[in-house]
Amino acid sequence: MNQVKDAAAWNGFAPGNWQYEVDVRDFIQKNYDPYEGDESFLNGPTEDTEALWRQVMELYKKEREAGGVLDMDTAVVSTITSHAPGYLDKEKERIVGFQTEKPFKRSLQPYGGIRTAAKACEDNGYHVDPELQKFFTIHRKTHNAGVFDSYTDEMRACRRSHIITGLPDAYGRGRIIGDYRRVALYGVDFLIAEKQEEKQDTRKIMTEEVIREREELSEQIRALQELKKLGEIYGFDISGPAKDTREAIQWLYFGYLAAIKEQNGAAMSLGRTSTFLDIYAQRDLEQNVYTEKEIQEFVDHFVMKLRLVKFARTPEYNALFSGDPTWVTESIGGVGIDGRPLVTKMSFRFLHTLSNLGPAPEPNLTVLWSVHLPRAFKRFCARTSIESSSIQYENDDLMRVSHGDDYAIACCVSSMRVGKEMQFFGARANLAKCLLYAINGGVDEISKVQVGPKYQPITSEYLEYNQVMERYHDMMRWLAGVYVNTLNIIHYMHDKYSYERIQMALHDKEVTRWFATGIAGLSVVADSLSAIKYAKVKAVRDQDGIAVDFETEGDYPRFGNDDDRVDGIARELVHSFMEYIRENHTYRQSIPTTSILTITSNVVYGQNTGSTPDGRKAGEAFAPGANPMHGRDKKGAVASLSSVSKLSFSDAQDGISNTFSIIPNALGKEDLIVLGDNIELSIERDCAACGNINLS
Amino acid sequence: MNQVKDAAAWNGFAPGNWQYEVDVRDFIQKNYDPYEGDESFLNGPTEDTEALWRQVMELYKKEREAGGVLDMDTAVVSTITSHAPGYLDKEKERIVGFQTEKPFKRSLQPYGGIRTAAKACEDNGYHVDPELQKFFTIHRKTHNAGVFDSYTDEMRACRRSHIITGLPDAYGRGRIIGDYRRVALYGVDFLIAEKQEEKQDTRKIMTEEVIREREELSEQIRALQELKKLGEIYGFDISGPAKDTREAIQWLYFGYLAAIKEQNGAAMSLGRTSTFLDIYAQRDLEQNVYTEKEIQEFVDHFVMKLRLVKFARTPEYNALFSGDPTWVTESIGGVGIDGRPLVTKMSFRFLHTLSNLGPAPEPNLTVLWSVHLPRAFKRFCARTSIESSSIQYENDDLMRVSHGDDYAIACCVSSMRVGKEMQFFGARANLAKCLLYAINGGVDEISKVQVGPKYQPITSEYLEYNQVMERYHDMMRWLAGVYVNTLNIIHYMHDKYSYERIQMALHDKEVTRWFATGIAGLSVVADSLSAIKYAKVKAVRDQDGIAVDFETEGDYPRFGNDDDRVDGIARELVHSFMEYIRENHTYRQSIPTTSILTITSNVVYGQNTGSTPDGRKAGEAFAPGANPMHGRDKKGAVASLSSVSKLSFSDAQDGISNTFSIIPNALGKEDLIVLGDNIELSIERDCAACGNINLS
Repeated sequence: MNQVKDAAAWNGFAPGNWQYEVDVRDFIQKNYDPYEGDESFLNGPTEDTEALWRQVMELYKKEREAGGVLDMDTAVVSTITSHAPGYLDKEKERIVGFQTEKPFKRSLQPYGGIRTAAKACEDNGYHVDPELQKFFTIHRKTHNAGVFDSYTDEMRACRRSHIITGLPDAYGRGRIIGDYRRVALYGVDFLIAEKQEEKQDTRKIMTEEVIREREELSEQIRALQELKKLGEIYGFDISGPAKDTREAIQWLYFGYLAAIKEQNGAAMSLGRTSTFLDIYAQRDLEQNVYTEKEIQEFVDHFVMKLRLVKFARTPEYNALFSGDPTWVTESIGGVGIDGRPLVTKMSFRFLHTLSNLGPAPEPNLTVLWSVHLPRAFKRFCARTSIESSSIQYENDDLMRVSHGDDYAIACCVSSMRVGKEMQFFGARANLAKCLLYAINGGVDEISKVQVGPKYQPITSEYLEYNQVMERYHDMMRWLAGVYVNTLNIIHYMHDKYSYERIQMALHDKEVTRWFATGIAGLSVVADSLSAIKYAKVKAVRDQDGIAVDFETEGDYPRFGNDDDRVDGIARELVHSFMEYIRENHTYRQSIPTTSILTITSNVVYGQNTGSTPDGRKAGEAFAPGANPMHGRDKKGAVASLSSVSKLSFSDAQDGISNTFSIIPNALGKEDLIVLGDNIELSIERDCAACGNINLS
Repeated sequence: MNQVKDAAAWNGFAPGNWQYEVDVRDFIQKNYDPYEGDESFLNGPTEDTEALWRQVMELYKKEREAGGVLDMDTAVVSTITSHAPGYLDKEKERIVGFQTEKPFKRSLQPYGGIRTAAKACEDNGYHVDPELQKFFTIHRKTHNAGVFDSYTDEMRACRRSHIITGLPDAYGRGRIIGDYRRVALYGVDFLIAEKQEEKQDTRKIMTEEVIREREELSEQIRALQELKKLGEIYGFDISGPAKDTREAIQWLYFGYLAAIKEQNGAAMSLGRTSTFLDIYAQRDLEQNVYTEKEIQEFVDHFVMKLRLVKFARTPEYNALFSGDPTWVTESIGGVGIDGRPLVTKMSFRFLHTLSNLGPAPEPNLTVLWSVHLPRAFKRFCARTSIESSSIQYENDDLMRVSHGDDYAIACCVSSMRVGKEMQFFGARANLAKCLLYAINGGVDEISKVQVGPKYQPITSEYLEYNQVMERYHDMMRWLAGVYVNTLNIIHYMHDKYSYERIQMALHDKEVTRWFATGIAGLSVVADSLSAIKYAKVKAVRDQDGIAVDFETEGDYPRFGNDDDRVDGIARELVHSFMEYIRENHTYRQSIPTTSILTITSNVVYGQNTGSTPDGRKAGEAFAPGANPMHGRDKKGAVASLSSVSKLSFSDAQDGISNTFSIIPNALGKEDLIVLGDNIELSIERDCAACGNINLS
């Protein structure tokens, strides 16, 4: 059994299994104090906080003036230990650490793809050192190069035609949450010893799987040693456990900082740290180590750092995601499986940063909503939502069933047990375009290229529902196959050329891997099929016989009006596609899931898709995620939510998003607070679709 | 079906399947003229040849004076296209191309291991560019780093104690022969097209195996494109087939040159090229394109280049291999499965370089010996052996049965069908030390460390045969397991970090992979067990109870005297060890084989092995390969050969070597020529042990 370096750091904590092996949940459950009170204990920003934030605002301004990027590394490849320490104002900062030696300077991360890294520089007026670029082209293959070496012509065609899109084949796949709390609770030396033990205990017959596992564990150990070095660079010895709140936040942040120094995943989420940290805060408050004001200052400075996470991106990336999001998601609240809410004062402190520092989309503060959350906290959430428009909500009552009470959200909706599960991120398949392929016998309606298999096209003037459905199922099955196999290549190559060593070092050895897929265009397809079934849809074909437009006669039920006729089609579609996904071999024994979440990229998907039988014209945006198409949900908010909630979570376990906007004035302040309670309306049903309530 | 670029280059060749797909053997069989005559047609060296060779001798002298190395690259990583053209004297050279921009300059090849590459420089007074070394340490992992990340403690202990030794874990594994003839016959464009077709036709379910295959094919295609570039660097367009003898040699050599620019394997063999090239020479002679003198000059210049293959090596490597061998093995002669000898005038011309340029160990000219070789050729071989002491012989009559008539020898004895089979090279397990481990319960007799499993040691004063054998079998089974698993790691990592892309590009898509293992100390163990069985052996133990010496009372049969009592033990040992090897999982569906061949490294193995029950004292050299221990074969050459020939080839398909020295004067010239015939004596029996007849 390994010994922690300085067990005195644990004085005052209730004992448990967590003392003998890595078990953060056990530590939390044995030690946290649920907080039922209100926000009156909270403190405003300190002078230092305000000074630092002014400095940040000034840098933001300069960054905007500079065209979006203030500074970029062009010759130093980012690693955990590649940079000297960076500060805003060392004297004022309670929590320290930047990705490079100064704030707002974007690091160079070529492991995912040297061409993309170079392009990200070029497009911002910077130029990667030619020797370095040559080296990464000739000697140090990248993820992107590996992927394109293995892609089939069919995969390239699917990618080019956007029937599969947003694939993480040139940047970090993200969606892997290291359990950064482990750094604080145990110190790095204990974690290294644990990993060394895991390496001792691998299976002994050297199959490729075991060889890879052993190499990965060696990489993880090396990454942990570098993490310790990162602490030293900033003047901290993080080999042992954190001794107080400030150290706990700092240690934890070093773990996260190491991850973002090495990986530029589309979503580099933080996990579920607030209740964990509250245990340190409670102890410090009781022992008069720190005041509430000081603790809030630590949190403010920590969150300030999380707001300043930056990656070098290409314009194409920014177009897809409508900006440059980092999805530093922190999951707050929720309820334990013993029924006690996991809300602590720290939950309030985290949300309070939206007031102390002002509103911001990052870190993506996400409340794990439950009917059982303390009422005072619910009201505080609702109020903060009104004031900041910056809180995301997820259905804890639903996810707790399958994920327990120590999961966190990666990106927007993907839930995983922290340190025990990871996800192979999979972007999205365009089901609306797939319907057009079914109608056009695999020929792309925009490029006129044969992309899909040469199945029989539909040649009748009027579309017949059963025939369309039969062809559509064949085409979905094909799409699921090429999609999963494309992702198999991506994840194989990511592991090979851009392995997330520090993130995986903060996981258990035996990790459950989710193979995430995604669906775009659900409501478009549901409405299209409904139109074909309940109205008359005539195909308008061009000179090549490709259906490029549709004329609909008569009315038909539309998704988003709580009408089972079309809602059932949507539910069935998701179910079928998931079944087709499951038919395929998935990399590394990963478990296939799907999600219905396009918060912004739905615009781009729509741009690349021809006219659809629901009346949507070529190029028009899809609805985001599982949303009904804009303006078609005419029976009010509850009916709209109800339609979405009919989608089965078991078919889309990676999450379903519903972007739902309400104009506050239409409800009045009190109503809104009630809405804080009434989110139960949708979440009591079988759906995780309560996310992204943006109040504006 | 792909088309060759310039089919006119094939005018005059007999048609066949070779025109439609890569099938070099078919081309040879349809086109070659067996030559039954003698050497009288041969020409001496031209003035240019002599001038060039003088230049080479001068450089050799300078190299010796400089301490063994004349120049080294320290900043340019060797790739197919990394260097400007290099010449001795451009005007005089008929065949061109060096590994770097000048002769005798050793290239920098860090893919196998940056530390080894740096050490090879350091030990010769050169220093690898620190930035480059840093890059290969941090960003571009090497084979060596990967291997050590996955080794178990047990493997490291076995390596340290030398019970497994000579593992190719820090340099190229070699023993892979590209079919360099394909470059000449088809030109590079056709080969690229074929590989592209192969890539089209992989299986479509993206398992890791298929993904890897597709990536490897992409790497192969890229390597072929670079090979074309290499031709351009030297002023040749090798996209189409070679049009005459000179081009055929030059094209073929470019293929080989590309391989040694990227790989520094312990044996980078050439293949079986002479009969292939003779077809071009015959056509050119008939069409008066070139004279015999010119053709010999091309061959002399080609062989001169092969003699100048150089790698940067560490002193440890040179100690193990007694110098700096490259094993550029060219397999000459043999007989076709239709009974026609594969001897042509070119077979003579190749051997004649030993006269025109003087004797040399490289290229390792290897005659595939058959009773059916033309008598004039046999006599020529014997005479050239007498004059040069530089010919290796292998048993074609034996190998043809399993390998057909287009195999070649890699290194000293490993046979493989050219372009259709490759080998994972596996160095050797020390069976003599294994016997000591069996006696000492897994404790190493030198370091006193527990290396093997804690099986019961033998504690009796006198060793009892059945007890020793039982323990020995258990220990051999353990050794086979750890040995094979170590090799699994090595070959996985070699494919991952130092893949032989150009060599594999000159192979078929579906390649048979041999998983080579090797045995050292066979005659030591056979004699030791014979002593235990037929005499009385007393163990002398130190204060720790470890048997460190042995005292033998009475006489016993010794291996090498055609005595079945001990020869049977040797045969049974090889059989058992091979069975234990076969029990294990081998990487990439490779087929396990073993070899008994230590031509020089037997000295080092002996140094690291304690005293053995056969009376050999600690540190004394083993006999090489399957040789009887020096001086113990007292019944003459035939009895000695006979003992070795009892070893079953089916148990040691990777080859059995017997280094056999005869003093010419003892036989007289005529006898020696008769020996040329009488090599049949040993080769008609079930053994390939006729190799390495060094006449001195």
